[in-house]
Amino acid sequence: MSARTAVTRFVPTAEQYAWTFGGYEPVMQVRPGDVLDLFTEDAFGGRIRSSQDIASKSIVYPFINPQTGPFYVEGAAPGDTLAIHLIDVQPARDWGVSTTVPLFGSLTSTKFTPTLQEPLPEKTWIYAVDSGAREVTYRALDSEYSVRLPLEPFLGTIGVAPAASEARNVLVPEAFGGNMDTPEARAGATIYLGVNVEGALFSIGDGHYTMGEGEVCGVAVEGSMNTLLTVDLIKGVFCDWPRLENDQEIMVAGSYRPLEDAFRIAHTQLIRWISAETGLSMMDTYQLVTQASRSPIANVCDANYTIVAKMPKRHLPPGVDWMRGTHERLRESSKAVKGVVPSE
Amino acid sequence: MSARTAVTRFVPTAEQYAWTFGGYEPVMQVRPGDVLDLFTEDAFGGRIRSSQDIASKSIVYPFINPQTGPFYVEGAAPGDTLAIHLIDVQPARDWGVSTTVPLFGSLTSTKFTPTLQEPLPEKTWIYAVDSGAREVTYRALDSEYSVRLPLEPFLGTIGVAPAASEARNVLVPEAFGGNMDTPEARAGATIYLGVNVEGALFSIGDGHYTMGEGEVCGVAVEGSMNTLLTVDLIKGVFCDWPRLENDQEIMVAGSYRPLEDAFRIAHTQLIRWISAETGLSMMDTYQLVTQASRSPIANVCDANYTIVAKMPKRHLPPGVDWMRGTHERLRESSKAVKGVVPSE
Amino acid sequence: MSARTAVTRFVPTAEQYAWTFGGYEPVMQVRPGDVLDLFTEDAFGGRIRSSQDIASKSIVYPFINPQTGPFYVEGAAPGDTLAIHLIDVQPARDWGVSTTVPLFGSLTSTKFTPTLQEPLPEKTWIYAVDSGAREVTYRALDSEYSVRLPLEPFLGTIGVAPAASEARNVLVPEAFGGNMDTPEARAGATIYLGVNVEGALFSIGDGHYTMGEGEVCGVAVEGSMNTLLTVDLIKGVFCDWPRLENDQEIMVAGSYRPLEDAFRIAHTQLIRWISAETGLSMMDTYQLVTQASRSPIANVCDANYTIVAKMPKRHLPPGVDWMRGTHERLRESSKAVKGVVPSE
Amino acid sequence: MSARTAVTRFVPTAEQYAWTFGGYEPVMQVRPGDVLDLFTEDAFGGRIRSSQDIASKSIVYPFINPQTGPFYVEGAAPGDTLAIHLIDVQPARDWGVSTTVPLFGSLTSTKFTPTLQEPLPEKTWIYAVDSGAREVTYRALDSEYSVRLPLEPFLGTIGVAPAASEARNVLVPEAFGGNMDTPEARAGATIYLGVNVEGALFSIGDGHYTMGEGEVCGVAVEGSMNTLLTVDLIKGVFCDWPRLENDQEIMVAGSYRPLEDAFRIAHTQLIRWISAETGLSMMDTYQLVTQASRSPIANVCDANYTIVAKMPKRHLPPGVDWMRGTHERLRESSKAVKGVVPSE
Repeated sequence: MSARTAVTRFVPTAEQYAWTFGGYEPVMQVRPGDVLDLFTEDAFGGRIRSSQDIASKSIVYPFINPQTGPFYVEGAAPGDTLAIHLIDVQPARDWGVSTTVPLFGSLTSTKFTPTLQEPLPEKTWIYAVDSGAREVTYRALDSEYSVRLPLEPFLGTIGVAPAASEARNVLVPEAFGGNMDTPEARAGATIYLGVNVEGALFSIGDGHYTMGEGEVCGVAVEGSMNTLLTVDLIKGVFCDWPRLENDQEIMVAGSYRPLEDAFRIAHTQLIRWISAETGLSMMDTYQLVTQASRSPIANVCDANYTIVAKMPKRHLPPGVDWMRGTHERLRESSKAVKGVVPSE
Repeated sequence: MSARTAVTRFVPTAEQYAWTFGGYEPVMQVRPGDVLDLFTEDAFGGRIRSSQDIASKSIVYPFINPQTGPFYVEGAAPGDTLAIHLIDVQPARDWGVSTTVPLFGSLTSTKFTPTLQEPLPEKTWIYAVDSGAREVTYRALDSEYSVRLPLEPFLGTIGVAPAASEARNVLVPEAFGGNMDTPEARAGATIYLGVNVEGALFSIGDGHYTMGEGEVCGVAVEGSMNTLLTVDLIKGVFCDWPRLENDQEIMVAGSYRPLEDAFRIAHTQLIRWISAETGLSMMDTYQLVTQASRSPIANVCDANYTIVAKMPKRHLPPGVDWMRGTHERLRESSKAVKGVVPSE
Repeated sequence: MSARTAVTRFVPTAEQYAWTFGGYEPVMQVRPGDVLDLFTEDAFGGRIRSSQDIASKSIVYPFINPQTGPFYVEGAAPGDTLAIHLIDVQPARDWGVSTTVPLFGSLTSTKFTPTLQEPLPEKTWIYAVDSGAREVTYRALDSEYSVRLPLEPFLGTIGVAPAASEARNVLVPEAFGGNMDTPEARAGATIYLGVNVEGALFSIGDGHYTMGEGEVCGVAVEGSMNTLLTVDLIKGVFCDWPRLENDQEIMVAGSYRPLEDAFRIAHTQLIRWISAETGLSMMDTYQLVTQASRSPIANVCDANYTIVAKMPKRHLPPGVDWMRGTHERLRESSKAVKGVVPSE
Repeated sequence: MSARTAVTRFVPTAEQYAWTFGGYEPVMQVRPGDVLDLFTEDAFGGRIRSSQDIASKSIVYPFINPQTGPFYVEGAAPGDTLAIHLIDVQPARDWGVSTTVPLFGSLTSTKFTPTLQEPLPEKTWIYAVDSGAREVTYRALDSEYSVRLPLEPFLGTIGVAPAASEARNVLVPEAFGGNMDTPEARAGATIYLGVNVEGALFSIGDGHYTMGEGEVCGVAVEGSMNTLLTVDLIKGVFCDWPRLENDQEIMVAGSYRPLEDAFRIAHTQLIRWISAETGLSMMDTYQLVTQASRSPIANVCDANYTIVAKMPKRHLPPGVDWMRGTHERLRESSKAVKGVVPSE
């Protein structure tokens, strides 16, 4: 790695966190190729630290999921695509936290799916993190059971300023990315986001140490994170919905309601993308995707639900430079950087 | 394996196939512990054999997904659960077929999600099966591309007679099982279905040689199948929705619309099951499932959509005999049988 | 009215009620033109008669919504349409009843939209019926308030045997009609149902004395009913979904989930019907329906949700004999019969 | 009406229109009690004037539904409710326009419910307005048919700045009001909107001359409008979702997806509101609403779908000053003003 890719560390002050995508002044200006080492606070702003702290008393809506950013990317213009390559994503603390939140989650009535029933009880679980063993420890509240789960850190939110002059709360996922809660936003992945405003104005947050599919109760094992990333621009190419890429797969994230519409968005976008790049006809692509894609559910609890459509590259025609080869290039250029992330 | 577990081979005649769950006389009476070797025709009744055969001309609705069965299980009474352990599931032919069907599939308007738009073109793809290499070959219709995909055979439909005196078309998945289209119904798995009528009256069909998640275009790589299975009864235990178990995981399949309701069904059932068997409180189980479950989408194209909620046993309290240890017992007893399936 | 249209009174015995659409032997054979005077029991089989009777103790699922029928209509063959003209629909008792039912209704989690929350309390309200004033009286349970609401009797269920050899529980609405819960099935209306089996096998039940749109808590003011009706056949014309007609409007009922799919079904069917009969192009019809249709919600609580798309005839091209003029003909022929309904 | 209630006329310049709720500087500061006479441009900015003008060539997304406003209401603070009483809503032109828009509308695949199908044709219909006869004239494009429909003018959009620092595109309805497309926003109605930011920042637009329920093709008979309105504040009372009131009814508008969630929002809010104001228990209110409410569908085409839950005041306990009697007071105070609206 050359001298010009020095790593810029940024830890926001309490006042610097952003609470919407769009509508915030940038905290910093960066250039394509820059490497950032970013601290993100946990979804609760670090204010829930024991099983005695409960969500509805510790946090005030809408101050959930504080965002580190937004960052202004020089040269980014509407119609381009921003590529964010996650070099490393590591817990910044040795504990994480999950809770239930009244009228939030997939197995309760909610603000947007209301019933006349009483909410579920409010509870808090603290997880010890064993970074060496790559595990977190679940402990039951009402009995003695505990078990170690794999530590699989990722960013719950990553997004840019939305189109149409909108500003969206950080709890929302949509075409601009945002609170997608997909484990695919992990170290080694590149996230592609269509640029809607000058500078793109991306931000990240909502680190998760581990999570099942769907984020069932609405809250993963939340934790502050240190993220090492680099950015690039793909000029003149616009992604309607977030695309993701790792060494094995290309992906599209769709976020809407009902859940089948998230599915439809992700899969139509994936098919049109593959067809455009490979020359396979749309119907042939529809068929191939039918037999070989995977469709992990990211969340069924947020303002929009998210599904990721993913396709193994090995099943697609060879020789395609997906997104102009950006992932491979960023993966290569960032190899020298990995592993330098400090902890809190 | 003792002498009394002789394998009974059954190949239906053209007139013997069933087209509903419920409403059919049994083709055979079997006992718990019996081993059956069953032939199932493909979803199209074997009538689509080249890319010149198109679905709307080859088949007549509702004669899709012919079922082998139903089988009357001696001793099965309402309130019990039927366990079907799939010992082996193997292609009975060296080719499979997929198509588009007008106004059917997840990325088109349909009979139940109609629009005023024109349907997509109707196409047929034939797949060569290489059983030795465990692969099937996709060939594009409109260009030269071909690629090998993994052969991963499973049963698209497996179910019993429904509750409430209903008879349901074989294209429908619901609480009685049916057309769930989950790849989890593969060799090595045990499927648990609540018994609604004397004899349970189970049937199987709709073999798939491979399929992506969601069965995107509505049609997997369809193929006739030879299935080796054994059955057992769990008296006095009733599963509201289909449960599945393999050596690593316990699962529940939820089937309804919209897709989030399939998710809600599968996950509430999984949580209540785990809580009842392990003594973990409901809220502790909700939390543990949130961090460790997986939620593969089975289909987003059938009359109801299906999601499977699955939990690794290794993350759950040890010493639980899930469904009274039926899976382990059937797995053990059937070891001697595996591998004797003849091909067509 | 001529001598051959004698009125046939039918009051089922306790054993004669039907609990599915499809799968039952007919209770009677009738001819086109016959006039029937039918007694229907209330949804609870008459077993809830005071506010001390609660639903979960008084009834046993699936024995809800007992059906009077099925009736075999001579000459009805698959591909025809059955027309049922409701001459009169009158309460057979001077009281009606509504309840909450655990995990049933639009503002609670349910069997198909489950959560982990506790159900709402179970309550029963008895309504006095004042047939002279055409009013029913609501009385609050927890305070002194009472108020008179308009008596607007209709049939919650009306349907034929389903297609594809299905038998469906009487709580389900779908293409065969069934538990649509639309107030449009009232005196003066003609209901058109596509015939799926020889004899059509129609039945009716689930009388409602009054109901708001959506049947919000899942239970209308339920009551036994005396219904005077006549039937006719439209040979060679098949309705994919139930059509309704009164003197002012033509209508289509769509029943599925999510609710927007019920909307889509009802409105695409209405548009295609109007376009076919009037010669207006599909796009011109789409436009006209957009500006002049009404879309009352029938139920948001049953196994499928129901929306009715209705269009005033006065806004449509004149001179169309909708459904070959069946409604006008039946309306005319039955004028002499109306008003002879006995009460219990 | 006293001298201080002089009518303020405001006609925006082309640059003054707002395109989001939230995120715009106010065009004017007003006080509770002020009467405004506002011109609103039609949804297409007046650029579609003949059947040769088609939407995709005449307008550029997101520049649809120009808003007149926002207006800063002195004294409005978060936690209050803004009352907007519509004194008169009259067409400002003698023609209106409707179109189809590619991939927009309830009977086509869309941006958020995508399929792989081709869009429907793009068409434009011009309607003549006969203000004297209170009618508009539909003319078919592909045949000679024409018909007069009732002129029923209302505002498709009316809203305030959203909560959580969001800015939402003017095509979106949600808790802040916005593009609800409900015909209830007509002359004689009072709309109550919870105040999220200092000054409330309300705006109006998207005048409709007539529309069926659901805005089926996505576009009503769109037209510029002159609206006479007055505003008031209800200090210390916050509406979570838009409430509406006219002389006969109280209402709540719910806007989300799927459509049943819009239904759930509207009806839970209505029930809790009635219960809080009347002292009826929640279960008694649930029952009464079930039997007496109406649930008109406003739109099934926008970014969120909208349903209005409405309850006749005559069925509710007497003596309640709904929203502190604001509607009656504004209705009374504005009687002297009505009828002075100039036309373009």
